[in-house]
Amino acid sequence: MKHYLKPHEWLIVEEGFDAHHHRISESIFSLGNGRMGQRANFEETYSGDSHQGTYVAGIYYPDKTRVGWWKNGYPEYFAKVLNAPDWIGIKIKIGKHEVDLNRCKVTGFKRTLDMKKGILYRSFTATLPDGKKVVVNTQRFCSMADGEIGAIRYSITPVNFSAQATITLPVNADVVNKDSNYDEKFWNEVSQEAKAGIALVTAETKKTFFQVTTAMSYSIETAGKTVKGKVKASKKEKYADNTVTIGLKKGVETVIYKYAAVLSSENHSKKKIQDQAKKKLKNITTKGYEKLANEHISVWSDIWKKCDITIEGDSAAQQGIRFNIFQLMQTYTGDDERLNIGPKGFTGEKYGGSTYWDTEAYCLPFYLGTTNPRVARNLLVYRYKHLPKAIENARKLGFKDGAAFYPFVTMNGEECHNEWEITFEEIHRTSAMAYAMRDYIDYTGDKNYWTEHGLEVLIGIARFWAQRVNWSKDKNQYVILGVTGPNEYENNVNNNWYTNYLGAWTLRFTMQAIDFVKNNSPEKYKSLVAKLRFNENTETEQWKDISAKMYYPQDQTRGVYLQQDGFLDKELIHAKDLKPEDRPLNQKWSWDRILRSCFIKQADVLQCMYLFEDDFTLDQIKRNFDFYEPMTVHESSLSPCVHAILASKLGYNEKAYEMYLRTSRLDLDDYNNDTEDGCHITSMAGTWMSVVKGFGGMRVRDGVLQLSPFIPDQWQSYSFRLEFKNRVLKVIVSKGKTDVLLESGEPLEIVLNEKVVKL
Amino acid sequence: MKHYLKPHEWLIVEEGFDAHHHRISESIFSLGNGRMGQRANFEETYSGDSHQGTYVAGIYYPDKTRVGWWKNGYPEYFAKVLNAPDWIGIKIKIGKHEVDLNRCKVTGFKRTLDMKKGILYRSFTATLPDGKKVVVNTQRFCSMADGEIGAIRYSITPVNFSAQATITLPVNADVVNKDSNYDEKFWNEVSQEAKAGIALVTAETKKTFFQVTTAMSYSIETAGKTVKGKVKASKKEKYADNTVTIGLKKGVETVIYKYAAVLSSENHSKKKIQDQAKKKLKNITTKGYEKLANEHISVWSDIWKKCDITIEGDSAAQQGIRFNIFQLMQTYTGDDERLNIGPKGFTGEKYGGSTYWDTEAYCLPFYLGTTNPRVARNLLVYRYKHLPKAIENARKLGFKDGAAFYPFVTMNGEECHNEWEITFEEIHRTSAMAYAMRDYIDYTGDKNYWTEHGLEVLIGIARFWAQRVNWSKDKNQYVILGVTGPNEYENNVNNNWYTNYLGAWTLRFTMQAIDFVKNNSPEKYKSLVAKLRFNENTETEQWKDISAKMYYPQDQTRGVYLQQDGFLDKELIHAKDLKPEDRPLNQKWSWDRILRSCFIKQADVLQCMYLFEDDFTLDQIKRNFDFYEPMTVHESSLSPCVHAILASKLGYNEKAYEMYLRTSRLDLDDYNNDTEDGCHITSMAGTWMSVVKGFGGMRVRDGVLQLSPFIPDQWQSYSFRLEFKNRVLKVIVSKGKTDVLLESGEPLEIVLNEKVVKL
Repeated sequence: MKHYLKPHEWLIVEEGFDAHHHRISESIFSLGNGRMGQRANFEETYSGDSHQGTYVAGIYYPDKTRVGWWKNGYPEYFAKVLNAPDWIGIKIKIGKHEVDLNRCKVTGFKRTLDMKKGILYRSFTATLPDGKKVVVNTQRFCSMADGEIGAIRYSITPVNFSAQATITLPVNADVVNKDSNYDEKFWNEVSQEAKAGIALVTAETKKTFFQVTTAMSYSIETAGKTVKGKVKASKKEKYADNTVTIGLKKGVETVIYKYAAVLSSENHSKKKIQDQAKKKLKNITTKGYEKLANEHISVWSDIWKKCDITIEGDSAAQQGIRFNIFQLMQTYTGDDERLNIGPKGFTGEKYGGSTYWDTEAYCLPFYLGTTNPRVARNLLVYRYKHLPKAIENARKLGFKDGAAFYPFVTMNGEECHNEWEITFEEIHRTSAMAYAMRDYIDYTGDKNYWTEHGLEVLIGIARFWAQRVNWSKDKNQYVILGVTGPNEYENNVNNNWYTNYLGAWTLRFTMQAIDFVKNNSPEKYKSLVAKLRFNENTETEQWKDISAKMYYPQDQTRGVYLQQDGFLDKELIHAKDLKPEDRPLNQKWSWDRILRSCFIKQADVLQCMYLFEDDFTLDQIKRNFDFYEPMTVHESSLSPCVHAILASKLGYNEKAYEMYLRTSRLDLDDYNNDTEDGCHITSMAGTWMSVVKGFGGMRVRDGVLQLSPFIPDQWQSYSFRLEFKNRVLKVIVSKGKTDVLLESGEPLEIVLNEKVVKL
Repeated sequence: MKHYLKPHEWLIVEEGFDAHHHRISESIFSLGNGRMGQRANFEETYSGDSHQGTYVAGIYYPDKTRVGWWKNGYPEYFAKVLNAPDWIGIKIKIGKHEVDLNRCKVTGFKRTLDMKKGILYRSFTATLPDGKKVVVNTQRFCSMADGEIGAIRYSITPVNFSAQATITLPVNADVVNKDSNYDEKFWNEVSQEAKAGIALVTAETKKTFFQVTTAMSYSIETAGKTVKGKVKASKKEKYADNTVTIGLKKGVETVIYKYAAVLSSENHSKKKIQDQAKKKLKNITTKGYEKLANEHISVWSDIWKKCDITIEGDSAAQQGIRFNIFQLMQTYTGDDERLNIGPKGFTGEKYGGSTYWDTEAYCLPFYLGTTNPRVARNLLVYRYKHLPKAIENARKLGFKDGAAFYPFVTMNGEECHNEWEITFEEIHRTSAMAYAMRDYIDYTGDKNYWTEHGLEVLIGIARFWAQRVNWSKDKNQYVILGVTGPNEYENNVNNNWYTNYLGAWTLRFTMQAIDFVKNNSPEKYKSLVAKLRFNENTETEQWKDISAKMYYPQDQTRGVYLQQDGFLDKELIHAKDLKPEDRPLNQKWSWDRILRSCFIKQADVLQCMYLFEDDFTLDQIKRNFDFYEPMTVHESSLSPCVHAILASKLGYNEKAYEMYLRTSRLDLDDYNNDTEDGCHITSMAGTWMSVVKGFGGMRVRDGVLQLSPFIPDQWQSYSFRLEFKNRVLKVIVSKGKTDVLLESGEPLEIVLNEKVVKL
């Protein structure tokens, strides 16, 4: 765990430059706007260790899969988030030397992310090897007002000299992917263009043929006046730039404004993409930095109005929650149903693929609670569009008759993962699509989603479960063999309780959806039956039978459900009794040792109780929590939030607070020692849930919003906002008191601490 | 299955050239001599599809491991059998054209492996693109009389022309490995030398720094007289040759003799290796082809005298068994305790590493029965020498106090495999080392092996098991969780019966060895106790407890042992009811489907009953065989032989014969569609066991040889020889009659059909 960042309500601040933290900071200070983003790489040359990363949403490359030992059913290709052409470079050379923080003496270094405004600031004084000293101040943003533009304000002031300087302003498509399997470069050049004042590169991905045009313009001012300088425009393969020679005067500030337009063929015809980029570039250059920045800040201001959470009395916690919300909001805006929430967002490229079940299980509740329902709906439609691929995916593994098995990781609907114990066996994820539908309908009341798209997806998934179970003559019940539950520290187990529960529930939920569609849209139902060759009688008969006779492992003595068959054969010890040098287990223990141990990455019995809370008594939840939580090591970033929510429900307030801290500052404090690869974007939604569903006790039951808040001892008060049925509510919790304000929209009845309240 | 080879008692014959079979034939017609060998690549240029492979025993390269997803405990490097410098080339150019069977019209093609002599023959008539026709006859061998030499006799006769021809005779170290993980070349050049009459290349492996000097000389005769021709010696990186220009006369035979010496730094100092290669080369060139061939043939003659198996009335079966014995004997001669029996021998490079538990479980009985006990002993010593690495391997996975975990695949004692379900979990292999000791001692009576090396290995292995089990409070017994048994179609199961049985047996066997060493060599025992910090009291107390309270899954109703916990939850169906298009499952089904099915790659319950036959009643064996055999798909090449042996014991003669056929012609008929990668060398020992232990009913009990033969209906008679306690016995089985002849050595009492017989 690292504590080099200063707590602050709205800012993330790094003071002093430590090259060892640079990759971590590059992740944490990342910027994005839903359409594009980049790690907090420096504009000027940096010859030290760094992970350069620029990303454009929806642009991927199917890299040839790399495995040691092939298993039938593995995908041939593994779609990767692509490192995209880079537009941030501002290379400054004074005399023989470049401004390069790896080769200069650096003082007064400060990197600041203003989360309220969405702007990244940096300032430092650099002494070049020849003694020349400059003061630099930078600002950068990816505009939330227009997802295709970004801008930089780069100010440089000579302290102890006057000299000519050359300023190189590139766009560069000659980039590599850190995790390329065969060291291949994934971009081909389409064209480049460079002339005084503008440079652009259009590059195309291999195989997938996405094109991205990256264009830049700039203006330079010295002492507030535009300077032209001597301009040399040059280009080479996948690269174009302008180099401007100007005079720097001692004590006089020169400001470089760099503007970028990044257009993708996903949104523009390939024929017109360069023209449109130039047009856009012209517009924004004319508009100028300040105006663009204000438009951008104004969007953030609107976002915060809807989704801010305040915490009084604990600035680390305040910073943590805002950072989580900020990252989520700049990763996914919900405008485009082709996009999703990558586990690293725009902060890194690890993991490949963009979409995990994280989206449905963790992110959806966040977007439901903070944005227009359209956003959550787009997430559902995204999966609907992937249904044919999910059916194909199931067929590859031997399933038939339209069974749908959603991939564990995907970009375009195809599976991108190849560990057999996950790819083939972590099957619960396919029901996350069903659960997300339930969540969405509970929250919005929009049952018509079933009619429009939902039922078709559900029937595919239900068919998968009906084929995936088998009848055990020995148990006289249905069993589900060979699975991996959400607790990935167990592989290829039989009768994972979470999976069995979710499978049976999905069958019942699908039948509920059938009833709704049949009664409300009989024509639509009829055409769906024909399209899917759905035999309602025989299929639902079987589903009823499976759901009624599903086997659920349990221990009667302890009164707990068993994570899987055979769990009680393990030596049951507590995580607190592990030696510190053995943690985290996933870095210190061999895989077989982890598998044989009782330790849990994320407790899936508890996960299920969180999802289906109303199916269990408080006593049941308590007994299972008391049994599993002590064995849980929370080495999944998705784990603590669920524990925080259940602990809150059980009145384990200290535990809830401990779990909250663990999730909210995971990246800021580099808790898992892996933030250098990027931030844990999807688990950030869990942080929001910890506060709102955990401390706030927020639930939606039968379309009614319920709250039962408590406040951690460490806090004086906290507040959160909720978007709910066209209203914005503000919930303010202080010691012994909860206020719920209706900030916009029609009056509403809610349940506060089990009492109906009218707002 | 392919049937393009002609059945013949002593020959493997391919008639007619079919390029589609070429890679398979390259495997089947491979040559070796325990020290080196090569696939049956053509001497002349062949531009068609081919897998070039030359191998030198003990020469490996630790290629960087390739995995999709890393698991803690995986090896960083994966030792590969290396494709070594190639010496067989005889490139012939006549006018503008090369002799190249891919570019010539080929008639009368015949490839013959004479297993009696160990010589590979080839003959064909080739018509060059310009109409010139040549008749070619070749012979080649790797000398069994001197493991460092090989020779070729290459005869060429122009049919319809006279012309100048250039003959290029290279040695070439610029070779690649088919399965290199990162397309790297593994050899660096040390030196080359080429002058008239000789060419040599010394190459060194990267990282491991093995050197191999490959040297060639030659002589050319036309019409029986030596021709010098015009010689040009040339060399380039990793390559040296002589090119000889001679006149070919219509109707006159020209014979090229090419001699090779292949010396490795494993057997020669690097300083002298070139000189010694030259010296050897000079000697063999002087000796000449015929003499060298006769010396080679004479060694084979001696081998066949000890280990031949004859089968009357079934030439396919006869050819099959001889082919299996031939391949085994040319793969491993037992002279060098640093070497072992690679799964592909000198016939291919697939799988990497050289040593599997196949050696102990399958090959050891073969070498015990057919060669001097020294050979089997060397196989044990090989593992003794790897003990420190086995301890290190265990330590890496979290075991302590000198626990020894032998790798699943190895070259130098280090693990070379990286599938977690195998590498970490197929733990039964570590006890194969103990079982091999039992086999060796039973057969030879040499209990002193325990004192010399054996006990030290056993204590290491016993310690592993003592740490690997855990006490199940739930079962009130010891359990072994998270394993893969020999049936690799089940992964990460709990309480695999085979594994539990072998683990407990190992503990008892170790205590037996302790008693022997303590009583017979108390001093040696004392020093071993000190060396290993062995606490006899506490450790053996624990071992006794584990062995006494081990849990063995079983089904009381059926009276069978259960392959693992939960096996009865599966749908139990029979392999015969599978659709033909679903076989083999490992090519047609996804991995998860295989895992969830009841189908068995090799039945490990039966494997255990085969190993510990005397621990079970005939009825127990029968019930388990009848239960498991129908679910077994035999997709491991190691499976059928065990079934053949048990079926023989149970009097299921037809089944035994069916299983025998499946193992004996596995490669000749390319049964598993993978012989192009190389032959299944280790499973060939299983074929021998099918005959000797299966049909012959051979066992050794308390040092006494027992036989209870039956003869398959399809055969008229069969015979096998056995090396047993300094004697050679010949067993001849015909309908209704068994003769046992003592071919050499002192008189001996054996048990024949349960009666004591004196020979």
